[in-house]
Amino acid sequence: MDPRKAYDELIQKVRNLHYITSVRSLMVWDQRTYMPKKAAKFRGRQYAAIAEYAHSVITSREFVSLLEEAERGDFPPGSREAMNLYWLRRTYDRTVKVPVALRLDLIRKTTETEVVWREAKEKDDPSLVLPGLGEIIRLKREMAEYLGYETEPYDALLDDYEPGLRAKRVEEVFSYIRSRTVDLLRKVMDARESGKVPKRIEGRFPVIDQRRFHIFMLRKIGYDLEAGRLDETTHPFAVRITPGDVRITTRYKEDDVLDGIFSTLHEMGHAFYNMGLPEEWFGEPVGNAPSLAVHESQSRFWENVVGRSREFWMGFYPFLQAFLPTLYDYSLEDFLFAANDMKPSFIRIEADELTYNLHIILRFEIERDLINGKIEVKDLPDAWNSRFKEMFGIEPPTHREGFLQDIHWYSGSFGYFPTYTFGNVIAAQIRARIMEDMDLPSAVYDWDFASILSWLREKIHSHGALYLPEDLVKKATGEDPNPMYLMEYLQEKVDLFYS
Amino acid sequence: MDPRKAYDELIQKVRNLHYITSVRSLMVWDQRTYMPKKAAKFRGRQYAAIAEYAHSVITSREFVSLLEEAERGDFPPGSREAMNLYWLRRTYDRTVKVPVALRLDLIRKTTETEVVWREAKEKDDPSLVLPGLGEIIRLKREMAEYLGYETEPYDALLDDYEPGLRAKRVEEVFSYIRSRTVDLLRKVMDARESGKVPKRIEGRFPVIDQRRFHIFMLRKIGYDLEAGRLDETTHPFAVRITPGDVRITTRYKEDDVLDGIFSTLHEMGHAFYNMGLPEEWFGEPVGNAPSLAVHESQSRFWENVVGRSREFWMGFYPFLQAFLPTLYDYSLEDFLFAANDMKPSFIRIEADELTYNLHIILRFEIERDLINGKIEVKDLPDAWNSRFKEMFGIEPPTHREGFLQDIHWYSGSFGYFPTYTFGNVIAAQIRARIMEDMDLPSAVYDWDFASILSWLREKIHSHGALYLPEDLVKKATGEDPNPMYLMEYLQEKVDLFYS
Repeated sequence: MDPRKAYDELIQKVRNLHYITSVRSLMVWDQRTYMPKKAAKFRGRQYAAIAEYAHSVITSREFVSLLEEAERGDFPPGSREAMNLYWLRRTYDRTVKVPVALRLDLIRKTTETEVVWREAKEKDDPSLVLPGLGEIIRLKREMAEYLGYETEPYDALLDDYEPGLRAKRVEEVFSYIRSRTVDLLRKVMDARESGKVPKRIEGRFPVIDQRRFHIFMLRKIGYDLEAGRLDETTHPFAVRITPGDVRITTRYKEDDVLDGIFSTLHEMGHAFYNMGLPEEWFGEPVGNAPSLAVHESQSRFWENVVGRSREFWMGFYPFLQAFLPTLYDYSLEDFLFAANDMKPSFIRIEADELTYNLHIILRFEIERDLINGKIEVKDLPDAWNSRFKEMFGIEPPTHREGFLQDIHWYSGSFGYFPTYTFGNVIAAQIRARIMEDMDLPSAVYDWDFASILSWLREKIHSHGALYLPEDLVKKATGEDPNPMYLMEYLQEKVDLFYS
Repeated sequence: MDPRKAYDELIQKVRNLHYITSVRSLMVWDQRTYMPKKAAKFRGRQYAAIAEYAHSVITSREFVSLLEEAERGDFPPGSREAMNLYWLRRTYDRTVKVPVALRLDLIRKTTETEVVWREAKEKDDPSLVLPGLGEIIRLKREMAEYLGYETEPYDALLDDYEPGLRAKRVEEVFSYIRSRTVDLLRKVMDARESGKVPKRIEGRFPVIDQRRFHIFMLRKIGYDLEAGRLDETTHPFAVRITPGDVRITTRYKEDDVLDGIFSTLHEMGHAFYNMGLPEEWFGEPVGNAPSLAVHESQSRFWENVVGRSREFWMGFYPFLQAFLPTLYDYSLEDFLFAANDMKPSFIRIEADELTYNLHIILRFEIERDLINGKIEVKDLPDAWNSRFKEMFGIEPPTHREGFLQDIHWYSGSFGYFPTYTFGNVIAAQIRARIMEDMDLPSAVYDWDFASILSWLREKIHSHGALYLPEDLVKKATGEDPNPMYLMEYLQEKVDLFYS
């Protein structure tokens, strides 16, 4: 068959498959918002049936022979066709390398262990979950062997989330971030000791009024509510069901007005990316973001760079006060400082911009050691606590506030955590670059979010997965991911609030 | 291959397919409740991809050879296996008989015509939609030829909705209902002229209070909100996504408290049926209801037989008044009479229990003539108006209130309408039968809905599609569907309120 024809047929197949698998996003959205409790059992079978179907298509003889045939074509390097074939080859290879039995074992084990983890966390009892976690790690190591790696097993898993990234590189970036963060944190703690501590924003903030403000804010920033929704959930997320249907969720705490706002801004950032991916590529590999870190850079950009800036709140705070009159008791400065509160804490998802990366670095070091066999599962609780103390100067009083806090490992996600901090790195780098093209603070103050968004669309979103993650960052900013910008940005923040 | 093995493999295939196709129910629910507007375009492609996949499975060589092999087995007639094979054979035959091109033409034409129909209805302009409708009828006739029939083309289409039912039989049943209904309606009209007219229930009924009452009512009747939901929509519906996930929707009119209540009760009846189908048969053909009419019998039973009865409101009216204090201006008798208001009207979905069947009979006669070529599309507007006048004594002032009111024909549903009245027939027959086993009015008055529901579960729901529709009715009630019970029931109603 002619390679062009094979390519077209292959892409048609892949698109049709994606039209079906993308329905899972609706199922996930439903499951976490409105799904009745007793739906869980058969919902699991529905997911499994779709997964099985997708697996059968990708591993079919027809699929691989179309792929091979198409690969014989001379599509220009970097073209949409060439990149689609690159991603399809990658998916195919990674799919066939791992035996189905191992995949099923992992699904079974992680499904079981997630349940046990919830109990262990509630009862603060590591012994319940350590055996299951040990099994998962054993299976993940086995998977790494099947997938293959050059220097260490952990790399094979990391590559799942961040194509091309290696532990060695993460280590370099993180050691730079770590040492500078520790310095900055010392400065912050000194300032705090001398009385520079934000006032706690207290009061009762009715959910309905919070929701009204969130909708107002989303509209003003330019989130299209005819192509999305804002619903409530326990763990906020953004989900792209199709182009034209990119939904976000948030949560409202009646005693904490900040939490929900930054959740919404974070998920809105993800949604903007999803809404900016080329519609006509939907269903093709190039129609997606190239990696989690790049995706996270967009959420962090809107949540932190834009959303925690003075200019943002100069514009929005008067409205927030009008929606939630309790806030007339707090000045703009009070509010802004509270939104930029920095201090050591135990829980990653509640951490501030500065200490957040330390939480990630801790997890990276531990999970790398677990996968590479440098530490045993039985030593995990102690390893966590001692390393935490070394890094933060405090020790978690419970395991619930320690190694049991995140679901990731218990659901089999090893290699995921670093992408959060790489997202921060890229977001700060984009900030530095965008400021060469426009006056970012003024644009934010003037509610000219359209200009910011169109910059991001042009430089990032519109390329989909036409480039590998690092190449995209380089193309957009002129440089490989460089943690210097993140540390400069954080330095500015610390100077602004704690000096 | 051994027939038993072939059967098992076939059923596994069918179940897995159903786990995927059943996700469409979630998509439909979403589309009619929360889906953002701009999702429509790609949602269409998702439906199409699933439909195409289902079609490819059912028409695959593997499917038919498993089916043929399994049919060689000696499964006892009427067994779960035998009935599954019966339904699968039926689906397979009906699928392969009709050329794919014709199916695609129909999908294209009806999708187009539905849009035009909305405009035609709004502008009250038949000329916009008659050409499209003519095309649809031509295609449906062609389809009937492919499907085959014994006496008239219409039968082939009717059989799609009501397996085994023929136009001749519908005609008999309907002519009986028609003549008796006309007599009863005359009696009602005489009583109305002498002043027996219900007071209109007027006032402003806040949506939120209506919703609270609906939830209260559903709970008391026994609808499991952990296995379902109640949401708001324009055209209420019930949908079974999986066992354990059977959702209903309703609508609230601020100036009409009755409309929403009976919508909710109607959809609840459908939901009870869906919830009562054997869970372990989910994904197999026998795991469904055998026909639309049987399904409709359950919704009509709860909406009308139970929901419009005096005993029901003796229990619920004081609560309804407490939720909606405006109703303290109306006595139980006022309310009950308003809920049983009977009079000629133009709109089917607003019609009362008595005249409703006349609306259906009109549509049956016309659609049968259209498909069998007895009347031309161009004569439809006049035919509708003159037959309507003959039946109801009044003529629709607009086509919007005439032949343009229902979407069915414009979306290609010919043969669907009769199932509504057959649902009424079966509901009344069940009522007659259940009253031999229990004191139905007392059970309703005592809120002993569990007893009623368990009777329905045992006699109807739990059998799924193990019997053909008429056989199921016969098994449950001891008799073939017999319209006498419906007319006796309506006679009682008329005597109660209009004598």
